[in-house]
Amino acid sequence: MKLTHESAGTFAIAPTPFHPDGRVDERSIDSMTDFYREVGCNGITVLGIMGEAPKLEAQEAIDIVTRVIRRARDLQIIVGVSAPGFAAMRSLAYAAMDAGAAGVMIAPVPSLRTDDQITTYFRQAVEVVGPDIPWVLQDYPLTLSVQMTPKVIRQIVQESPGCVMLKHEDWPGLEKISTLRGFQKDGSLRPLSILTGNGALFLDFEMERGADGAMTGYAFPDMLVDVVRLSKEGRRDEAHDLFDAHLPLIRYEQQQGVGLAVRKYVMAKRGIIASDAQRKPGSSLSAAGKAEVDYLLSRLARRDKRADLATKFATAS
Amino acid sequence: MKLTHESAGTFAIAPTPFHPDGRVDERSIDSMTDFYREVGCNGITVLGIMGEAPKLEAQEAIDIVTRVIRRARDLQIIVGVSAPGFAAMRSLAYAAMDAGAAGVMIAPVPSLRTDDQITTYFRQAVEVVGPDIPWVLQDYPLTLSVQMTPKVIRQIVQESPGCVMLKHEDWPGLEKISTLRGFQKDGSLRPLSILTGNGALFLDFEMERGADGAMTGYAFPDMLVDVVRLSKEGRRDEAHDLFDAHLPLIRYEQQQGVGLAVRKYVMAKRGIIASDAQRKPGSSLSAAGKAEVDYLLSRLARRDKRADLATKFATAS
Amino acid sequence: MKLTHESAGTFAIAPTPFHPDGRVDERSIDSMTDFYREVGCNGITVLGIMGEAPKLEAQEAIDIVTRVIRRARDLQIIVGVSAPGFAAMRSLAYAAMDAGAAGVMIAPVPSLRTDDQITTYFRQAVEVVGPDIPWVLQDYPLTLSVQMTPKVIRQIVQESPGCVMLKHEDWPGLEKISTLRGFQKDGSLRPLSILTGNGALFLDFEMERGADGAMTGYAFPDMLVDVVRLSKEGRRDEAHDLFDAHLPLIRYEQQQGVGLAVRKYVMAKRGIIASDAQRKPGSSLSAAGKAEVDYLLSRLARRDKRADLATKFATAS
Amino acid sequence: MKLTHESAGTFAIAPTPFHPDGRVDERSIDSMTDFYREVGCNGITVLGIMGEAPKLEAQEAIDIVTRVIRRARDLQIIVGVSAPGFAAMRSLAYAAMDAGAAGVMIAPVPSLRTDDQITTYFRQAVEVVGPDIPWVLQDYPLTLSVQMTPKVIRQIVQESPGCVMLKHEDWPGLEKISTLRGFQKDGSLRPLSILTGNGALFLDFEMERGADGAMTGYAFPDMLVDVVRLSKEGRRDEAHDLFDAHLPLIRYEQQQGVGLAVRKYVMAKRGIIASDAQRKPGSSLSAAGKAEVDYLLSRLARRDKRADLATKFATAS
Repeated sequence: MKLTHESAGTFAIAPTPFHPDGRVDERSIDSMTDFYREVGCNGITVLGIMGEAPKLEAQEAIDIVTRVIRRARDLQIIVGVSAPGFAAMRSLAYAAMDAGAAGVMIAPVPSLRTDDQITTYFRQAVEVVGPDIPWVLQDYPLTLSVQMTPKVIRQIVQESPGCVMLKHEDWPGLEKISTLRGFQKDGSLRPLSILTGNGALFLDFEMERGADGAMTGYAFPDMLVDVVRLSKEGRRDEAHDLFDAHLPLIRYEQQQGVGLAVRKYVMAKRGIIASDAQRKPGSSLSAAGKAEVDYLLSRLARRDKRADLATKFATAS
Repeated sequence: MKLTHESAGTFAIAPTPFHPDGRVDERSIDSMTDFYREVGCNGITVLGIMGEAPKLEAQEAIDIVTRVIRRARDLQIIVGVSAPGFAAMRSLAYAAMDAGAAGVMIAPVPSLRTDDQITTYFRQAVEVVGPDIPWVLQDYPLTLSVQMTPKVIRQIVQESPGCVMLKHEDWPGLEKISTLRGFQKDGSLRPLSILTGNGALFLDFEMERGADGAMTGYAFPDMLVDVVRLSKEGRRDEAHDLFDAHLPLIRYEQQQGVGLAVRKYVMAKRGIIASDAQRKPGSSLSAAGKAEVDYLLSRLARRDKRADLATKFATAS
Repeated sequence: MKLTHESAGTFAIAPTPFHPDGRVDERSIDSMTDFYREVGCNGITVLGIMGEAPKLEAQEAIDIVTRVIRRARDLQIIVGVSAPGFAAMRSLAYAAMDAGAAGVMIAPVPSLRTDDQITTYFRQAVEVVGPDIPWVLQDYPLTLSVQMTPKVIRQIVQESPGCVMLKHEDWPGLEKISTLRGFQKDGSLRPLSILTGNGALFLDFEMERGADGAMTGYAFPDMLVDVVRLSKEGRRDEAHDLFDAHLPLIRYEQQQGVGLAVRKYVMAKRGIIASDAQRKPGSSLSAAGKAEVDYLLSRLARRDKRADLATKFATAS
Repeated sequence: MKLTHESAGTFAIAPTPFHPDGRVDERSIDSMTDFYREVGCNGITVLGIMGEAPKLEAQEAIDIVTRVIRRARDLQIIVGVSAPGFAAMRSLAYAAMDAGAAGVMIAPVPSLRTDDQITTYFRQAVEVVGPDIPWVLQDYPLTLSVQMTPKVIRQIVQESPGCVMLKHEDWPGLEKISTLRGFQKDGSLRPLSILTGNGALFLDFEMERGADGAMTGYAFPDMLVDVVRLSKEGRRDEAHDLFDAHLPLIRYEQQQGVGLAVRKYVMAKRGIIASDAQRKPGSSLSAAGKAEVDYLLSRLARRDKRADLATKFATAS
């Protein structure tokens, strides 16, 4: 099913599981995909910034996309196709859609500065991938160093009918969500799904500002699913209670550079993937770092009241 | 008392209180200084990045420094003297020390890139302020976009006997503390006080990695004092329990751009300063933002078990 | 006489002459000012990026401004007031206008990225310096890393009646001049003086695209005066012949970092200032660099057909 | 023949010729390759920054490399393999060497800041492409925003026996060449070929500082060949005379963003390639820009005393 502006809920940003020797770990792709589906994710985003995509051969990337799509059944799969060149972007986008992806995600190249440069870039990208592919606009200034104002985002969306979703991870970004929703109220922006990233660090309030869900790779997507649901049901305190219990780990995982190592370490501990290995060159957790994560996990187990999560974690570790 | 490498504990980064019409609010400088002293801060840092220093006339800046120093009695006062030009840096450093400051703080200018450029810059700065002024090296890549490796920091410290303290706010930075402490163990780095910033977002583990305390402006410096103390006493779980209760607000205050508005809003609510006004041009909290902070404060009041804080907050609000 | 949109011709960017021991060289300020006036400059810009302004004490800066203004008589003096803080900007702007300056020049702070951030910054700056001071908008992306599109420049100019001149040094920038002049033709931009910088590296064509003159610090402002004049008279080949003769040196002086050292070295050789000293910390020319400049000067002397320049140079060297 | 530290002379940076409809123009690849060989180039660099490499499909890139290598016979062909990901870098490097390339060229990724980050990156790159492939280190801060000091370059070279050449295009960079040659004299750096880029803007003095030749894409590589030769023969004035005649055009072509459009326009005018088309998205010359280049070419034809060039240009236009 193609991505639309009504796509919502929790989209897990999937890491790429590797064996310790650097080969892609297909069995872990399957178990990870199963896990995302079972805990209630609505979709999966593959080959994003956290997917170690630049270390994959072109064919490997397509194989992974295909495998996840087949395994995920009714989940919507989004494929990151950001690339320094439009040729590579087009190839991957076509291959992804051929394999059954729901849409693609495009980030701006880091050199863009002025509003005109940004809108021109996306106009060219849309020309390249064609008007029929639904796509997600990624707004991630902290890592990409491209700053898009709400007005620029509105212009991009209005110019491209295929742009149906915003991956929002500006920081700070709460007012940005409010401004965009305001644009929709005053009729100057058409309907747009907004899923939020930033490792979920502000998910509690982002939902209250009008986000449609989360798209991030935090190692407990099951918590994301619940926070999104509780928030939509208006159970504010419960949403915050659950969120706050996870915040110490969310914050720890949010460290740039080492974040992926934390994430894979926790996912391996939980039994979602077999190994926390990254393909070279990768970052890794020091012994002190691992001990800190273990301590955070032990504290989390005490504070998280939901039995299923406690059990799952106990089983997996 | 001059700053030394043994200076430790909690140094509050002080905002500059203004009246709503933009004048410096001297009475609030006094009440804020008293508050810092009463809750157990060991020092105060004025005219830092969060002190709206660039909006102050030269004479205003010196007047504020002088007022805080006189009022703070035995606390150590550090004065931020970072400036685009060495002439302004020297003038302010001399004036600050004349007024009785314990030391000055120097950040690198944003254009520095290579290791050599960075070490040369600090060599020149030390030449300008002279060898007798104790100074704090500020390492804040997220805002200053200058990246100093542990080796570069070691070189700066070894070359300048006056450099007695590191304001550590690299992010992620836990391994950096461990590496610097390792340098001291292997004898390649002389004793150095390390206080950590980043709005306290990682204070819990920074203390465990070897930090000597906190130097940041979080609106509950009384919590910082306690976490630093608990951590030094080895009461790990208690330190984390207290820290975790504050983390939702710490995280909220850490938002770049709007952070100072949050901080002043909370400090005004607590009665530490009279108004949350910023001198123009300043940022401000939207109505939605204020409501979010209020909600976080109400949740914090429930979770923070220490009666004194609860009372203090209740009294102030 | 105040700066207006009709101000045109050649404005020399003046270096600040120092004695070898670092003191301001007042006699050289006088001889340099006399020189600029005698060769036909229409104005002088002081305390610009090449004026070592950040190394000057506040009082020194005002003394220099005052001295140049008195000495220059009927020339229009522009004072660079760019500063990281609005307080310092306002103080210097008021002091400059009190001393008789024709206007001030304001550059954006390096952190600005989006169109909105840029226009907001200048709106605030104008609020600070007031509506009555004529000012020059400096557009210098290579050094300031702020990119202003023609549309953004138009918006700034239209919003501030005091903005009467653009110091154009975008690179490449020929099309930018054409676009801005096009805006004027279609009525969307009011009259605006455009003087070009970039060390004159493109002055030949910038004049043909519609520039009103040059504002740069090339060590032969007498050549700038002539190229501007020849170009305005439609004597294209002559303008290019003269320009091309100087291009090897223009290009050499345009090297970032070492450019000021080249400029002061040549000006000292020509007898315009007494010494090529920079106040610490400064750059300097290596022996090889000096020999290269000497070689370029000897070649220039052969190629420049105008007897007056040849004589002047012969006298000075 | 593999690249060694003795490789020297003029290496043309080749653009990728396209038909106006965007297809690769193979016939022009042949004529361009023939031209480079006939005018005396020692090598050709393909898929560099100016080769529109990111717009090429992977197979297209390999086809172009193969075609140039076969056609160029005894010239050394260097293939740019810089890529955001090591997987793509390795694939292209292997394919290039299999096709008979003399070596590959690697630029740092733009995010690198500290000396350690830079040296680590190249250590990983060498691990990926293997120790047997000779490679060129590209030092281009203006475009790549990575600043490598001479000490960092020395460390990279000393750690990797495969690094036999530096493409020097730091700006300013004359002292850098002198420093590196000084390292060789004091024995701390092994022999290294240094070819200079920057569109040849400083080629005259770079040769005198110790460069082994030019590696750049200026539209008159025949001039580069002659300047390099004259300079090596010690015919200084002749080298500068020839260089200065071209400097107005060199300077014009050096404009970032529009430079490739100028280069292709001139090469098409000279008959070296059939069309100045760029694959989308590309830049193009305005009518005013074309007229300016035409004017510069007409002036160049008058000033360049060498009959062969005059004839060649006359024939081609």
